[in-house]
Amino acid sequence: MGGDHGPRVTLPACRHFLEQHPQAQLLLVGLPQSLQDFSHPRARVVAASEVVAMDDAVEIALRKKKDSSMRVALQQVKDGQAQAAVSAGNTGALMALARYLLKTVEGIDRPAIAYPLPNAKGGATTVLDLGANVDCTEQHLLQFAVMGSALVSALKNEEQPSVGLLNIGEEIIKGSEVIKKAGELLRSAAASGDLNFHGNVEGNDIFKGTTDIVVCDGFVGNVALKTSEGLASMIGGFLKEEFSRSPLTKVAALMAYPVLAAFKRRVDYRRYNGAALLGLRGLVFKSHGSADEFAFGQALNRAYDAARNQLLERVQARIAHARPLLAGGDADAQPAEAVAT
Amino acid sequence: MGGDHGPRVTLPACRHFLEQHPQAQLLLVGLPQSLQDFSHPRARVVAASEVVAMDDAVEIALRKKKDSSMRVALQQVKDGQAQAAVSAGNTGALMALARYLLKTVEGIDRPAIAYPLPNAKGGATTVLDLGANVDCTEQHLLQFAVMGSALVSALKNEEQPSVGLLNIGEEIIKGSEVIKKAGELLRSAAASGDLNFHGNVEGNDIFKGTTDIVVCDGFVGNVALKTSEGLASMIGGFLKEEFSRSPLTKVAALMAYPVLAAFKRRVDYRRYNGAALLGLRGLVFKSHGSADEFAFGQALNRAYDAARNQLLERVQARIAHARPLLAGGDADAQPAEAVAT
Repeated sequence: MGGDHGPRVTLPACRHFLEQHPQAQLLLVGLPQSLQDFSHPRARVVAASEVVAMDDAVEIALRKKKDSSMRVALQQVKDGQAQAAVSAGNTGALMALARYLLKTVEGIDRPAIAYPLPNAKGGATTVLDLGANVDCTEQHLLQFAVMGSALVSALKNEEQPSVGLLNIGEEIIKGSEVIKKAGELLRSAAASGDLNFHGNVEGNDIFKGTTDIVVCDGFVGNVALKTSEGLASMIGGFLKEEFSRSPLTKVAALMAYPVLAAFKRRVDYRRYNGAALLGLRGLVFKSHGSADEFAFGQALNRAYDAARNQLLERVQARIAHARPLLAGGDADAQPAEAVAT
Repeated sequence: MGGDHGPRVTLPACRHFLEQHPQAQLLLVGLPQSLQDFSHPRARVVAASEVVAMDDAVEIALRKKKDSSMRVALQQVKDGQAQAAVSAGNTGALMALARYLLKTVEGIDRPAIAYPLPNAKGGATTVLDLGANVDCTEQHLLQFAVMGSALVSALKNEEQPSVGLLNIGEEIIKGSEVIKKAGELLRSAAASGDLNFHGNVEGNDIFKGTTDIVVCDGFVGNVALKTSEGLASMIGGFLKEEFSRSPLTKVAALMAYPVLAAFKRRVDYRRYNGAALLGLRGLVFKSHGSADEFAFGQALNRAYDAARNQLLERVQARIAHARPLLAGGDADAQPAEAVAT
């Protein structure tokens, strides 16, 4: 139901997904009248009577709309009816509901959101946390690194993906107190075989693709992501303006069309749509709200791959293995449960 | 002497600067043998026997190279021989030396570095701190806002430039504890007429140009800047690759050349070269190390404008006015003086 376009985009994407994956089954959760036209032997509608709006406060999603499509979908995962949930809806509400219903994996204080961002190597760099976990401790950053490694190993079939700690310089002595302590913890985790820790990385390394994973607190991650979106949008706008400035430049645009189209494909973030909510006892993926059919399909694919490649078990196994380093306990964090009661 | 190119770039820029500004006078500080070919009635060489290398540790610049061109240049400002210093050299060394020699303005705990970044409105957004001030308090962020306002008012002739606080959402309740407290302080400063505070802004607002000034701690600012550089470089690289892929795309590039050149001019950060070191009892500007003649000239222009428009007096006046809000004292900060003794 969610996202900027709702079933108009999600349903065609679902149909295409089912055609691509002959083993896959889908539960379509939402208002029955919105989903009634969809029929497929491997799809089933699960009715929900409410929808979380994109601008609903988290409290509304948690306390008021108890039969929202988002909540019912997550309940399917909790009940073992579904192996993963995908939503293009309200991120804050999805995170809060997922945390409330599914709970976190033992050893994890706060779930994180991991986004893949395209890099110059032609692949994607997975950055976490982008889920607004502010005031993170070094323990949280270690947890993010362990979970991010599990995610990339499940989706890319790479056993020991490399992890970089986002900092303001490569040297060990750089950064805030929390970052320096996180560096020590990550080096310990590397020494005990829990991680392939590359060391500190800087902002430009995200798009260079220096490491498979970049770990940062949710504040810094959000700023990096939004700043990138702002810059990309400015550059795209300038390019468009210059090519449509006069009849002459429009001819140039026509001539350059195949090149510009190829360029556009390479910077197309839609290919990497589908952020993972990590650290929960169930798989949840978040599609960008503005996703079109292709992009939403990518989020479905990622969720499907994560389920097939046992992402949940991988996260749990890695967390268990890194247990001696994970002190646990997070007195200052406000759990979603407390909000909901 | 500094930067990636040294006098080969800085001297031609100086000559052009003198031609542009018939009232301006220059002191060229450096190794006499490197500067001997430069002669102009309004320029004078001030000899220094050493040069701070781009990779020298701050301690080397502070304790060992007591006759470096950087230090001698700053001494000219301290002694009133020069109204501003411009360097393309080692940023960390410049900041440490400037802090040690010039000292901070009363009411300022930590000097900040303010960079102008091009925005979609065709102007520049001034972002500070980008000077690696990590673990900032709300007081530091307020000081940055006051100093940034003085800078923009001096350089853009705009009495009350707008200030945004970089956050992960526009709502007051968003962000870390420090950011929330900084928001309160900034609102108080706006109420008492010290600032034109717009409210919270997000990463994308930097390139949108939502506010004239964006305030953040040095860690977040550094990540935002480096991430932007990484993205711009990736996009530029992709564009270049696509246009040089085949003979056909090369013809397209030729056809589109005027458009691409116009586009390049618009995203040309060289126009905005010249970061201000703010909060010191003297004007210091930092050019990008990779600056070419044009870019270094822009840094000279900015320093000249700042001196002509009394930036130093503006900073001091604004700080004095905001004094009731500035608690002062910064027990946890390690002053450069302590390092140098």
